Amino acid sequence: MKPLIGAEMHVINVGVASFAAAVAHAGAKATQVEWAPPGHGDRAAATAIAQLMRHPTVEAANQRAFDAYAAAQPVLEGIGVARETLPGMGERTILHAGPPIEWVRMCGPMQGAIVGACLLEGWAPDADAAKRLAASGELHFAPCHHHDAVGPMAGIISPSMPVWIVRNTAGGNRAFSNLNEGLGKVLRFGANSDEVLTRLRWMRDTLAPTLAAALKMLGSVELKPLMAQALHMGDEVHNRNAAASGLLLKRLAPALARSGAPTADIAAALEFIATNDHFFLNFSMAACKAMLDAARGVAGASMVTAMCRNGVEFGIRTSGTGDAWFTAPAPVVDGLYFPGYSKADAAGDLGDSAITETAGVGGFAMAAAPAIVKFVGGTPDDAIANTLAMRHITLGRNGAFTLPALNFAGTPAGIDARKVVDTGILPVINTGIAHRDAGVGQIGAGVTHAPMACFRQAVWALARSLER
Amino acid sequence: MKPLIGAEMHVINVGVASFAAAVAHAGAKATQVEWAPPGHGDRAAATAIAQLMRHPTVEAANQRAFDAYAAAQPVLEGIGVARETLPGMGERTILHAGPPIEWVRMCGPMQGAIVGACLLEGWAPDADAAKRLAASGELHFAPCHHHDAVGPMAGIISPSMPVWIVRNTAGGNRAFSNLNEGLGKVLRFGANSDEVLTRLRWMRDTLAPTLAAALKMLGSVELKPLMAQALHMGDEVHNRNAAASGLLLKRLAPALARSGAPTADIAAALEFIATNDHFFLNFSMAACKAMLDAARGVAGASMVTAMCRNGVEFGIRTSGTGDAWFTAPAPVVDGLYFPGYSKADAAGDLGDSAITETAGVGGFAMAAAPAIVKFVGGTPDDAIANTLAMRHITLGRNGAFTLPALNFAGTPAGIDARKVVDTGILPVINTGIAHRDAGVGQIGAGVTHAPMACFRQAVWALARSLER
Repeated sequence: MKPLIGAEMHVINVGVASFAAAVAHAGAKATQVEWAPPGHGDRAAATAIAQLMRHPTVEAANQRAFDAYAAAQPVLEGIGVARETLPGMGERTILHAGPPIEWVRMCGPMQGAIVGACLLEGWAPDADAAKRLAASGELHFAPCHHHDAVGPMAGIISPSMPVWIVRNTAGGNRAFSNLNEGLGKVLRFGANSDEVLTRLRWMRDTLAPTLAAALKMLGSVELKPLMAQALHMGDEVHNRNAAASGLLLKRLAPALARSGAPTADIAAALEFIATNDHFFLNFSMAACKAMLDAARGVAGASMVTAMCRNGVEFGIRTSGTGDAWFTAPAPVVDGLYFPGYSKADAAGDLGDSAITETAGVGGFAMAAAPAIVKFVGGTPDDAIANTLAMRHITLGRNGAFTLPALNFAGTPAGIDARKVVDTGILPVINTGIAHRDAGVGQIGAGVTHAPMACFRQAVWALARSLER
Repeated sequence: MKPLIGAEMHVINVGVASFAAAVAHAGAKATQVEWAPPGHGDRAAATAIAQLMRHPTVEAANQRAFDAYAAAQPVLEGIGVARETLPGMGERTILHAGPPIEWVRMCGPMQGAIVGACLLEGWAPDADAAKRLAASGELHFAPCHHHDAVGPMAGIISPSMPVWIVRNTAGGNRAFSNLNEGLGKVLRFGANSDEVLTRLRWMRDTLAPTLAAALKMLGSVELKPLMAQALHMGDEVHNRNAAASGLLLKRLAPALARSGAPTADIAAALEFIATNDHFFLNFSMAACKAMLDAARGVAGASMVTAMCRNGVEFGIRTSGTGDAWFTAPAPVVDGLYFPGYSKADAAGDLGDSAITETAGVGGFAMAAAPAIVKFVGGTPDDAIANTLAMRHITLGRNGAFTLPALNFAGTPAGIDARKVVDTGILPVINTGIAHRDAGVGQIGAGVTHAPMACFRQAVWALARSLER
């Protein structure tokens, strides 16, 4: 036995951190364990969690949901027109990002983007008329998610817009996304100037048919291996898509050249794709949506199947609670703001792109993308720490998405709403930040977190569903 | 004061490792410091090194050489024909990788590639006739390096072959490389079948003019920022060029489409580039050569300006010793062999591609490319350790090439021959492995090291030059 007195003192402190601070202050070593009581101090939640944490129904349901997600094989099948392609989308319908929201409560960028969509569709002669139309109740607004689609930032999809078609060949379900417009003045940040509308018309009337001809040459494109490759090339396929966009271009370029489309259209398409490092984002989102929809509707499963934001509310869905949304106010992102802008200028967290984190990439795969900290802030060590933290709130690892910096461990995937409530660790999300006013555009980027209230509600609803 | 007896025992051991082992065996903690006596135990070298290590002439010369290397701005200027473009290259000349070597001593892949070049040039009707011609003394063989060029593996450049032209806009010097043929049966691994020759003819007669037309549209391409970007995307731009090749394709594809070349040629060019993840290697090599040639010929400088291998000998040049080669037997690489092959099948280390390590990328930037261990062996931690080790034998860091995994530190660059001899730490090189027989091709890849004897000779020669 070593003598206790005389040897160096080491203290491990669990719980209230001030005990450890006092020990350290007295000159000894103290290690603070990041521990919190079950339910993160909320007694009612703790009771619900205690019942749910080892519930055999929930465990089995989560296994089924996770397996369906992990087995999914999202494949780019083609490009279609929204009105003909999105299930249940009628005329006079505009889809938006996030959970449901009515016109008057929408944030600036979303209203601006809807005005742009009305002009694009020819439903109004000018912006004022478009605003009156939007407020009149004559248009139908619905979340992209209600039509198996996802859109970044405002996420506006109107009937004539082209959409990517992604199919999960393992489960048969399909998911959709609009086409990425690039950076600068773009509809998804609420801009609706002539420049924006001209680009959208070109995308609809020229780019989409040109790409359709190329896809006909190419056949389908497996997106999962492409995403996996990009994770080995510094992307996390949410806020960094430089490698994935390049990998996709490698597939598209020869097919475009052989498509028979007019040379000028081919050149313009190549230029458009080659100069947009975010081109792949919408493919990544549709692929993630296809993977997660495979896990939907498993009774009793606490696995999160969607996280999204409309700029006012943050909403989540879980597998076991079907189509219900659990919402909370959308946080304003504490990120890296471009010169001249601050948090006071920002819209609330916005966009369906958190579908990537829901699927285990984006912020969950940040260890793959150390250079992203130049964009969202922090250090490469923070990037790794974010991925490691997500292991505490997920059901498993996605072996198809491996992380070189963590010796090729799979990304933590399948957010378990129970574990979020139990640990108090919130899902991390890499995101762009939109100006609160329509049309100003992106004013920063950062790391944000899904609000706890969404997960509490989801866990309560799950507990109630199990009592029935 | 803490009592020594009773406290835990920690030993730090410098020198002979068996002392530390004994302490550890007795149950205490022992940390072995990786230390070796000056000159790594070689008394004569230690004396020379002691004189050279703080020699003011050498220090000043190295600073000048390093600054010229660091200031270099390699830019892709165009594509030319070897006979018209490479300075001093006459007809009936064949350039090869590594230091000078005569036909009879060449390794199998190099002889095979020379046979292929004779057939391509129409100098011989068949392989036997080509071998007789090569042995006859009628052809002139010279290192690529003697004509400001570099070539991967056998590195064969014959008069009609197309070459990339890279210019250092800061120093005015130019460097050249041949075009990458892709993987499989290729000339650089000694293959010379009809398939290989047909591809080389297509590259010369169709691909090169098509790319020339595209480059005319595009103007010059800055290679240093492109390489820096690739280092943030998992490449080390020697054995992993997937990201860099994609980034280059992004620049070339729209220019190709607008070049006015026949559509079929454009499509074939795009396909050729898009399906070759090593396409950028030859650009990387020419850029590194252009950066290092800027540092050549500074009297007294111990900075290494070239490392290369001809499959039989490994050769280096230093800035202060001009055109002299310091050679030693080329090692056989202890790497990851493809199924069915082993070290016994391998040619000696081969190719000019170690110019990348000489310029601070490749093995020196391995921390940028954790996924490369799938190709060259080891773990991602080994990749980081290799980069860190190179800090001990280099003059500085290249701030243009930053490494996310090391919190954006610059790559260790500017190998100091003195420090190699002094520390015994050998420059690390990522490399492919060729079969010893012509035409079999690549049989593996791995991490190898430059032989110490080259650096010893260089340091001796430098010491003598300072005595004069």
